[in-house]
Amino acid sequence: MPAGPLTSVGIGDDAAVVGAPSGSVVAAVDMLIEGRHFLRDWSSAYDVGVKAAARSLADIAAMGAVPTALLVAFAAPGTLSARWPADLADGLAYEAARAGAGVVGGDTARADSVVLSVTALGDLVGRSPVLRSGARPGDVVAVAGPLGHSAAGLALLSAGVGDRGTAPSGPLPAAPAAAQGAPATLVAAHLRPSPPYDAGPEAALLGATAMIDVSDGLVADLGHVAAASGVRLEIDSAALVTGGPLREAAAVLSELTPSGGTDRGDSPPALALSWVLTGGEDHSLVATFPASAVLPPRWRVIGEVRTGSGVTVDGEPHAGAGGWQHFR
Amino acid sequence: MPAGPLTSVGIGDDAAVVGAPSGSVVAAVDMLIEGRHFLRDWSSAYDVGVKAAARSLADIAAMGAVPTALLVAFAAPGTLSARWPADLADGLAYEAARAGAGVVGGDTARADSVVLSVTALGDLVGRSPVLRSGARPGDVVAVAGPLGHSAAGLALLSAGVGDRGTAPSGPLPAAPAAAQGAPATLVAAHLRPSPPYDAGPEAALLGATAMIDVSDGLVADLGHVAAASGVRLEIDSAALVTGGPLREAAAVLSELTPSGGTDRGDSPPALALSWVLTGGEDHSLVATFPASAVLPPRWRVIGEVRTGSGVTVDGEPHAGAGGWQHFR
Repeated sequence: MPAGPLTSVGIGDDAAVVGAPSGSVVAAVDMLIEGRHFLRDWSSAYDVGVKAAARSLADIAAMGAVPTALLVAFAAPGTLSARWPADLADGLAYEAARAGAGVVGGDTARADSVVLSVTALGDLVGRSPVLRSGARPGDVVAVAGPLGHSAAGLALLSAGVGDRGTAPSGPLPAAPAAAQGAPATLVAAHLRPSPPYDAGPEAALLGATAMIDVSDGLVADLGHVAAASGVRLEIDSAALVTGGPLREAAAVLSELTPSGGTDRGDSPPALALSWVLTGGEDHSLVATFPASAVLPPRWRVIGEVRTGSGVTVDGEPHAGAGGWQHFR
Repeated sequence: MPAGPLTSVGIGDDAAVVGAPSGSVVAAVDMLIEGRHFLRDWSSAYDVGVKAAARSLADIAAMGAVPTALLVAFAAPGTLSARWPADLADGLAYEAARAGAGVVGGDTARADSVVLSVTALGDLVGRSPVLRSGARPGDVVAVAGPLGHSAAGLALLSAGVGDRGTAPSGPLPAAPAAAQGAPATLVAAHLRPSPPYDAGPEAALLGATAMIDVSDGLVADLGHVAAASGVRLEIDSAALVTGGPLREAAAVLSELTPSGGTDRGDSPPALALSWVLTGGEDHSLVATFPASAVLPPRWRVIGEVRTGSGVTVDGEPHAGAGGWQHFR
């Protein structure tokens, strides 16, 4: 596996040695468990590798740090094909390389189902970490990367739209065979999230006061920032992107089932908005910046920081703060 | 949880930030899986925490590095008592503190059985890492810490000697209630390994040319050093400590069963020697040093490095190189 530019000792000794030029290391661990975070019927091994790497690497970017390395613990049943771990490793290495990191260590074991634990390391490049606790009234709230795409992709898969059939693998993400257009894009976003890693250090350079990656849903994750910072975060729903592929997918689902693919009977626009506000696993980055910050176009302003507590959408507290539940 | 002296951001944000004064970080990950690496009937949650931490921290010490931090991923069934994860966390924190490290990050999930993945980080204090590949003919082989104690403890538990009854927990390792003397010591060594972490950086200072921790068994782990270094490692069985508690435990087992608690019909001295040569999970440190090195008493010379390949005991290749199999 490619070990990354900062790796001096990779896989094969008791431990890896990875450069930490800033004199400190940023580290995060995330688990991915079969049946809870992914289904082998829907996700190829390569997909699972990409998703597992993305979850941990996005945590590093959300501190404003540059990812440097992954360590992977992997347990699986003995009945798994030999190809599965090899494809998984390819997916992990692909996503690590996309973030500029290498896979430097690992451990394997037997278990009744597939369990992955991925630890990501990163470097702050001499800057202070961007914590959840620095948002101040008057700051703006901005997001880099898509929102709701993974949730829409999961809804499509659950409704049988975009069933990928034979799971593809290989070095490049490919659209599922059975899906076309917007559904294909969204299913791919669910199976292989693509966080904008370099937006994390960029946000730190731009003076971000707080940052988090959207793993549990926009409202839920902004709730963590609001609580840590002691502020209220107000979201302007008109600033959220709910058209395009999301609206198209919501329309497809509403044609399939009277309830729009959900139990809530949402109209397509309401369904698209609910994906954006509560959908998890896009691992886009949401940050707060001083109002004076000049943000590049990929940072879309979606709200502002006010005094108070919690998260409000168009001035009303939002009920979706419970967070993303993966599969039921 | 105590976060350790080098931790600037601990649990609660997207990632932890830990000092890496040397400008690089040493990192290793290990999994601990219920039914394979431990049984909840035998190990308390506190024991499991100690063992999981020790496995990963010993890998850091085996590089000659000083442990700084642990990140813990933990999955468990919903039926587990609330007390179990709390006791586990106490065990992890106890062993981390013993190594000078803090628990800085974590993730939790649901799974059908208990699965732990522990990532340990460390700092080289400005020195080069001690790899497996540096052993040279003429070097001596020396070990710090006990060998075979964990294996003997497992044999005793398997034979019903030293069944700990109600599993104790709490801040200090306690001997199992039902065992006394040597059996109690050995059962405790199995349940709560106690690697000599500071012997790792000490070995680096003393000029160690190669090092590994004994997780799979002495012969098996020295086999990794021999292969990586392109040398033969010759062990002098007379230099190994097979008396004391090991001989006592072997005698207890031979009284219980004609076969000495094994299928091999070993005599007590042969059983004690087999624990020392092939028993895993003591996480003692074994290293090679130039013959001119002046070693402190806790580094016991047990052999020497010669030209050739593999591991020999008293000049003969040893069959126990397959390694430690945990439970069957």
